[in-house]
Amino acid sequence: MRSFGSGAAVCAAVACAAGAGAQLAVDPATLVEWPAPARAEAARILGSALVRPSAAGLRASHDLLGSEPHIAGTPGDARTVERLEKIFAEAGLDVKRHDWWGYLCLPASAAVEIVEPERKALVLKENILTDDPGSGDPAQTPGWNAYSADGDVTARLVYANYATRPDFEKLASLGVDVKGAIVIARYGGNARGYKAKFAEAAGAAGLIIYTDPADGGYVKGLVYPEGGYANDTCIERGSLITLPYAGDPLTPGVEATKDAQRLDPATVALPKIPVQPIGYGAALEIMKRMTGAAVPAGWQGGLPLPYRVTGGDALKLRLMVKQERAVKPSANVIGMLRGAERPDQLVILGCHHDAWNCGAADPLCGQIAMIEAARALGALAKEGVRPKRTVLFCAWGGEEYGLIGSTEWVEANREMLSKSGVAYMNLDMASMGAEFSAAASPSVRRAIAASLPWVAQARAPEKSAFEAWRAKSPDDVFADRPKFGDMGGGSDHVGFLCYAGVPVCGVHGGGAPGTSYHSTYDTLAWYRKVVGEDYESALMVSRAATAVAARLAFAPLVPLAPEDYGPETRRQLAGLTARGRELGVFSKESTRDVAPELARVEGAAVEFGARGREVMERVRKRAAAGELSAGSLEAINDLLVKADRAWYEPRGLPGREWYCNLYGSPDRDSGYAAWMLPLLREAIERKERRPIESAEDRYLRVFAELTALVDEIDARASDMSR
Amino acid sequence: MRSFGSGAAVCAAVACAAGAGAQLAVDPATLVEWPAPARAEAARILGSALVRPSAAGLRASHDLLGSEPHIAGTPGDARTVERLEKIFAEAGLDVKRHDWWGYLCLPASAAVEIVEPERKALVLKENILTDDPGSGDPAQTPGWNAYSADGDVTARLVYANYATRPDFEKLASLGVDVKGAIVIARYGGNARGYKAKFAEAAGAAGLIIYTDPADGGYVKGLVYPEGGYANDTCIERGSLITLPYAGDPLTPGVEATKDAQRLDPATVALPKIPVQPIGYGAALEIMKRMTGAAVPAGWQGGLPLPYRVTGGDALKLRLMVKQERAVKPSANVIGMLRGAERPDQLVILGCHHDAWNCGAADPLCGQIAMIEAARALGALAKEGVRPKRTVLFCAWGGEEYGLIGSTEWVEANREMLSKSGVAYMNLDMASMGAEFSAAASPSVRRAIAASLPWVAQARAPEKSAFEAWRAKSPDDVFADRPKFGDMGGGSDHVGFLCYAGVPVCGVHGGGAPGTSYHSTYDTLAWYRKVVGEDYESALMVSRAATAVAARLAFAPLVPLAPEDYGPETRRQLAGLTARGRELGVFSKESTRDVAPELARVEGAAVEFGARGREVMERVRKRAAAGELSAGSLEAINDLLVKADRAWYEPRGLPGREWYCNLYGSPDRDSGYAAWMLPLLREAIERKERRPIESAEDRYLRVFAELTALVDEIDARASDMSR
Repeated sequence: MRSFGSGAAVCAAVACAAGAGAQLAVDPATLVEWPAPARAEAARILGSALVRPSAAGLRASHDLLGSEPHIAGTPGDARTVERLEKIFAEAGLDVKRHDWWGYLCLPASAAVEIVEPERKALVLKENILTDDPGSGDPAQTPGWNAYSADGDVTARLVYANYATRPDFEKLASLGVDVKGAIVIARYGGNARGYKAKFAEAAGAAGLIIYTDPADGGYVKGLVYPEGGYANDTCIERGSLITLPYAGDPLTPGVEATKDAQRLDPATVALPKIPVQPIGYGAALEIMKRMTGAAVPAGWQGGLPLPYRVTGGDALKLRLMVKQERAVKPSANVIGMLRGAERPDQLVILGCHHDAWNCGAADPLCGQIAMIEAARALGALAKEGVRPKRTVLFCAWGGEEYGLIGSTEWVEANREMLSKSGVAYMNLDMASMGAEFSAAASPSVRRAIAASLPWVAQARAPEKSAFEAWRAKSPDDVFADRPKFGDMGGGSDHVGFLCYAGVPVCGVHGGGAPGTSYHSTYDTLAWYRKVVGEDYESALMVSRAATAVAARLAFAPLVPLAPEDYGPETRRQLAGLTARGRELGVFSKESTRDVAPELARVEGAAVEFGARGREVMERVRKRAAAGELSAGSLEAINDLLVKADRAWYEPRGLPGREWYCNLYGSPDRDSGYAAWMLPLLREAIERKERRPIESAEDRYLRVFAELTALVDEIDARASDMSR
Repeated sequence: MRSFGSGAAVCAAVACAAGAGAQLAVDPATLVEWPAPARAEAARILGSALVRPSAAGLRASHDLLGSEPHIAGTPGDARTVERLEKIFAEAGLDVKRHDWWGYLCLPASAAVEIVEPERKALVLKENILTDDPGSGDPAQTPGWNAYSADGDVTARLVYANYATRPDFEKLASLGVDVKGAIVIARYGGNARGYKAKFAEAAGAAGLIIYTDPADGGYVKGLVYPEGGYANDTCIERGSLITLPYAGDPLTPGVEATKDAQRLDPATVALPKIPVQPIGYGAALEIMKRMTGAAVPAGWQGGLPLPYRVTGGDALKLRLMVKQERAVKPSANVIGMLRGAERPDQLVILGCHHDAWNCGAADPLCGQIAMIEAARALGALAKEGVRPKRTVLFCAWGGEEYGLIGSTEWVEANREMLSKSGVAYMNLDMASMGAEFSAAASPSVRRAIAASLPWVAQARAPEKSAFEAWRAKSPDDVFADRPKFGDMGGGSDHVGFLCYAGVPVCGVHGGGAPGTSYHSTYDTLAWYRKVVGEDYESALMVSRAATAVAARLAFAPLVPLAPEDYGPETRRQLAGLTARGRELGVFSKESTRDVAPELARVEGAAVEFGARGREVMERVRKRAAAGELSAGSLEAINDLLVKADRAWYEPRGLPGREWYCNLYGSPDRDSGYAAWMLPLLREAIERKERRPIESAEDRYLRVFAELTALVDEIDARASDMSR
């Protein structure tokens, strides 16, 4: 317990009665990974960190970082990197700037025009609002989608709903000819890049994507600036990348240094058709001129007209897109708190810093929460209380283009991460409202659940965020926990989870009524109007991040729970069973929640879960009683950190070898959702029996490895030499 | 079998290969209530009836009856009655006109005006369309709701979603003051009279009801005249009655003769606030001026703006309604085919003839199907083949005001119906598309299922309507049947079922893409454009009605199946269990589909079902073998007709004594849906244990009576004296 710096003057955690900024006390009984006699002091110290984040601090960071647009590779981006270096240094961290050179692009010009039956050019930019100075910043861009092909096409129109794979299959079954047409599709249902990919595969000449009022506009609630939802000019920007690897498109698997060997861009599968996003005002101008047949069920949106599958013969559109692409430098900013006892073991928090605009919500509401967590733990360090393990606070660059900064850093540090990455916590857009939730790899859930009771619920501090969350989302597998989310794709945790095998998590406040997602309205004015002036959401999230990071970094026994992979895998098998029955791969005769076809993996998961629980309960009890020698404890800690690597398959997933995690991956067809037990999921989606069996074999080997590991932990825990 | 008139020249049923008007053969094996040797001839005769209905005949009736608006009590109504008398007489029926005098109303004047922030009068009439001459008939009325109070109010605005009871509870929980406000609500979710009732109870000064585009307009599909859905001027008319009895508001429980004793209208619970329906174009003018808070989840509709709960301080509306009310004459037209052997036993088909407009869909597409059925059986009679039992074809007047014509006739003939009503089939709006379905009292389902395999599926005559329906809606209780609907409120079967205890049914073709419901667009032009020029839906329905009516009227053994009340009651108990668990009345610990709290009724239902099935199978076998004496057969037939009266409770349901059927009733709070086992349902909705127990006791007595009845049937069937 030396690392707690006994001489430091640390104040006790205070539970304020109520009101903004209120925080709960840390109950020593919840510090289960500490020896019992050390808990009271540890609780005092952690409590003193948890009262450190403040609304004023959050607001000040927000003012500084959200003051201007800062797209990766632009001057605003460079200024943001400098600001972050300064902030991290002032927080007491050792700051390292990690430069990388990525294949980036910027909009040059674009046009969407009705050509027939009359000529009308549509506006591709949001209205500038007097109450929202950020919306009028001269550095704001018109609407655009990064990595669109250049092109200038004039063609008839096809409406493709969300432009998912099933949507294009539906169009084919209706006999609608997409070849040579401009497709108009709405945002939602998948990552936008997949819309372009499927449209291109169907032979479309171009793609227009708009935000439907049913998905983000007036159907959802009051629109900006009166409310928070998309007004008719609001445009969602964003990258179109769908490569089988994350990070810089030209340097898969290696760090994008200035002189790295790069792929020829012409050989990289970026879109070959022009793609342009628009607002629903512009979409209405187009769609009210359509005269084709009515859409099938589920394709109607919120515009005031019956949606149609085709524009009809009389309607012709022009779509023109031109962008500039180049390899450009940007940087991650890494702030380090070096661990006092196990500096090699890494607890990592991260949030990107780049944005399509001012980025007040995406990403900064998460970045400012991370900064407050860094300040809280940095303040302890300044007082001499350093964590046992090293904590890294990472502000990633270039996330919006394709998770570039985080991925390049992971690619540069894969071996180190694989060996000693304890866990990664992602905080992208983390503070979007008062409703708390978390997503995590199974092994990290126990630590999160144990730490959250310390954190006050935003705007209702008489109860904890944990209680409020559990009341709203009870879990049926772990009765004492709320229902955690699974980690999918779409943000900077992907490299850690899928390329390095490190378990990941995220904490989140949500529920604010609106979205400014990737529009010029993602400003401080929007955030303060819609999420709140009080910064209660970000306070709750920064405390949750602090609490979880502190447990992971300070606990004498590494607070991972590999045994939870048993019941969590069984839960995933039940989900796969439902999907398999839906697809007709599994028989519907059995009423068991896990299909008999998956019984082998189920058996192994259940058996490992029981064995793991037995061992880990014994280990925790001995650790609490101070019965483990320092040598045994560190040997066990090394094994606990290693446990998640049982899911690591160096050959990767079929068809996307960069993705090496057998427990979780992004969805193959949408890029957003999580595909859990992806080897099995892919086999089920392909509806083939043989790949399912061979996937089962592979998962049996995972559980064999996990079982051997807990057996080794058990042996170390029984080692009486102190 | 004498009644089949052996000497008559009847042609065999022909299965045409395909194409419009195609019809299937009658398989003698399906005539299970006939002695085996008589089946072949019976099949030939029934088959000859089934090929009788024709698209040309349907179209001609439609042309004649749908040529002008014919609201009950108007000159168009009187002409419609005369036309029906002529049609029925030509079909070979004995025609009786049943005159009644009902409390009717007509619109005098109305206004909906925006008063503040600017003055704007809204249009209360549909656009007249050049392609739809019916829409421009000078006898068309503006939009109105019958029985609205007269009034002229100017007030602020509250939006109440569907104006259901939970919607007003939600408004109260949001702190919205409805007192003195004009409420605007959308159609759907309940019968419109309940919207007025709940608005009045909440203290509203008036009510405006509109058709939301999400419920009937462009969100559903292309709008009229391009497609079939409501355009922005389309207005749903209709009655606001919600009295605890059906029929004429002034003569509950007695026939509304010219000189009947009448209630003072001032003592009858008709609306006390003005109520006016409008189209969604007018609603948009109002709602786009609202400035209040955003609506709660589920309240948003399809207009292109965020819906708001209140209009805000700046918005004032004027609502003025004036109507003329009087006791006025109208008539039912009853066409009779007198039974050859059991003229006292009545098989009754009915459909109303009055309409808010030309009524091509509501009600005439059912009326013309009934007329074709009457012509089919009338043609047999002309050839000397009379049914065993009497068949009545009833064209009811005044249904739209409150089921007046049918109810007054039932009230005049309750004793006769109670004694010898075999079954009633309702055909209101029966032919609205090619998708077949049926709803029925449990005892009639077997006869419908046995008769439908004779009827070709509209537009796909290679298979039967029965097959197509079963493939789409399989049943989990009776594996050999499709899933039947339950009979709720809202049309002319209510008097038969609820006031006289006669089992009821309806056959229906649906699925055409559109609705002209109660608007001036309910015209021949709309029907032919949207449902079809081919009259395939009405052909299928008229054949289904003919087939079921012929089985009920011709079969030597009455084709009712009282034993089906056993499994059907158990099914309803499972539904009540789900509802009871939702309301917290029943424990959620049991996972049985029927709550242990309902075990006594469940036991009685299951036991009766088994006993009834055993007896009825023996009876049918003996009847098929010709082993029953004429005396036994008729005694059994009388018992079968009597069986449904076990559900008849002369004291009625609590709080609505006119409703005497313990198996089914309309929903208490919406008027549309069916509430099955209503004594139990009401007790569950009240969330009280004691009424549930006493309801159980009452249902145990029903099953005791049913069991005694099948015991008596069993005894009669075992009677060997021939």
